[in-house]
Amino acid sequence: VVGIAKGVGMIEPDMATMIAVLLTDAEIASGPLDALFRRVVDRTFNCVSVDTDTSTSDTAVVLTSGAAGPVDEAEFEQALATVCEDLTKMIARDGEGAETLIEVRVTGARDDAQAKRVAKVIVNSPLVKTAVHGADPNWGRVAMAIGKCSDDTDIDQEQVTIRFGDTEVYPTRVDDDALGRLSDYMRGDTVVIDVHLAIAAGAATVWGCDLTDGYVRINADYTT
Amino acid sequence: VVGIAKGVGMIEPDMATMIAVLLTDAEIASGPLDALFRRVVDRTFNCVSVDTDTSTSDTAVVLTSGAAGPVDEAEFEQALATVCEDLTKMIARDGEGAETLIEVRVTGARDDAQAKRVAKVIVNSPLVKTAVHGADPNWGRVAMAIGKCSDDTDIDQEQVTIRFGDTEVYPTRVDDDALGRLSDYMRGDTVVIDVHLAIAAGAATVWGCDLTDGYVRINADYTT
Repeated sequence: VVGIAKGVGMIEPDMATMIAVLLTDAEIASGPLDALFRRVVDRTFNCVSVDTDTSTSDTAVVLTSGAAGPVDEAEFEQALATVCEDLTKMIARDGEGAETLIEVRVTGARDDAQAKRVAKVIVNSPLVKTAVHGADPNWGRVAMAIGKCSDDTDIDQEQVTIRFGDTEVYPTRVDDDALGRLSDYMRGDTVVIDVHLAIAAGAATVWGCDLTDGYVRINADYTT
Repeated sequence: VVGIAKGVGMIEPDMATMIAVLLTDAEIASGPLDALFRRVVDRTFNCVSVDTDTSTSDTAVVLTSGAAGPVDEAEFEQALATVCEDLTKMIARDGEGAETLIEVRVTGARDDAQAKRVAKVIVNSPLVKTAVHGADPNWGRVAMAIGKCSDDTDIDQEQVTIRFGDTEVYPTRVDDDALGRLSDYMRGDTVVIDVHLAIAAGAATVWGCDLTDGYVRINADYTT
């Protein structure tokens, strides 16, 4: 499985200004290939957001020659997902003005749909995006973003756990030693925000990027 | 009717980091006063968004001494709305890093709720906000934002009209003379985006501000 993608701005697919072409030589009929590709796209390309804005011209295509002969469909789907996830992260990292890849993992949700909704609200929050840009593990802004999901009344703030990387920041208070290590982590090129909702087993991972002066310059000064 | 308000960042009330206190001497019972104040707040303070992010600590209060004696309730509601709308515009103009007040008026919607939903999507679009910051009458970004309301399948792109100030930019093509005047308008301290959906008579007006380097600096660099 080989993939090529083009992304950058206006990226919250469903689909956005994105072209992705996946190539394989697996022998697999178009019906099953279409079905498994849709599942893969839903948890990769449709899980990225650079700035919430969308476009009309997205395309994700998978082509197969069949030359390799029959394949195990589950294994093939996983292989395709791995390539698509790599491309998705590259698209997010390549967002307009982006300096940091943000990965938001939500677990313990009522279902996968709720997990994806909460994760998207976090990755799209301008205040979370600027906090990451400023290398600040500001869990208050993550909690604020979760609180914006006002229809999700089953989320209990007292049960929520928030981590940056491997470090729990809420409800456990970070001591000074851990805060120093966390600051180093926040200055890296990837920041993982991990939220556990403690409701059920729903899970989702989405990708985005920090909000920078560069984003504003690219999108305000293009005419001058 | 006198009002005082405090706003700035994290402003998409419902309610956000905002305190507004309205004072009057109208003689009006607390029941009717509460009801008409809720209507007024819904079309003023709850129609502003600086960055889509919300807070837990908003307050809008109206206090009356009753010293002025009985009033016509409809006239009083209009007077209260006028003061609240002025405060709302001041809050939006005072958004973090804001240089331009954006007023989005949507008319011709199926109902007022649809009009408000479409107007909020436009005023919250980072690409619309940066286009205004760059003084570009980029109607394509407004059309893109309307297109994000994917549940509103009754919006027909062929019937939509978009204006910046008094100048129609879609579907009518702007000639060079008008474009010159429009560029001057876009560099002003207030930009009105007017969208007519041609479905029915629903209408709403919301307020926001441009997205600037200043916003990013305020929200990324606060720890340094």
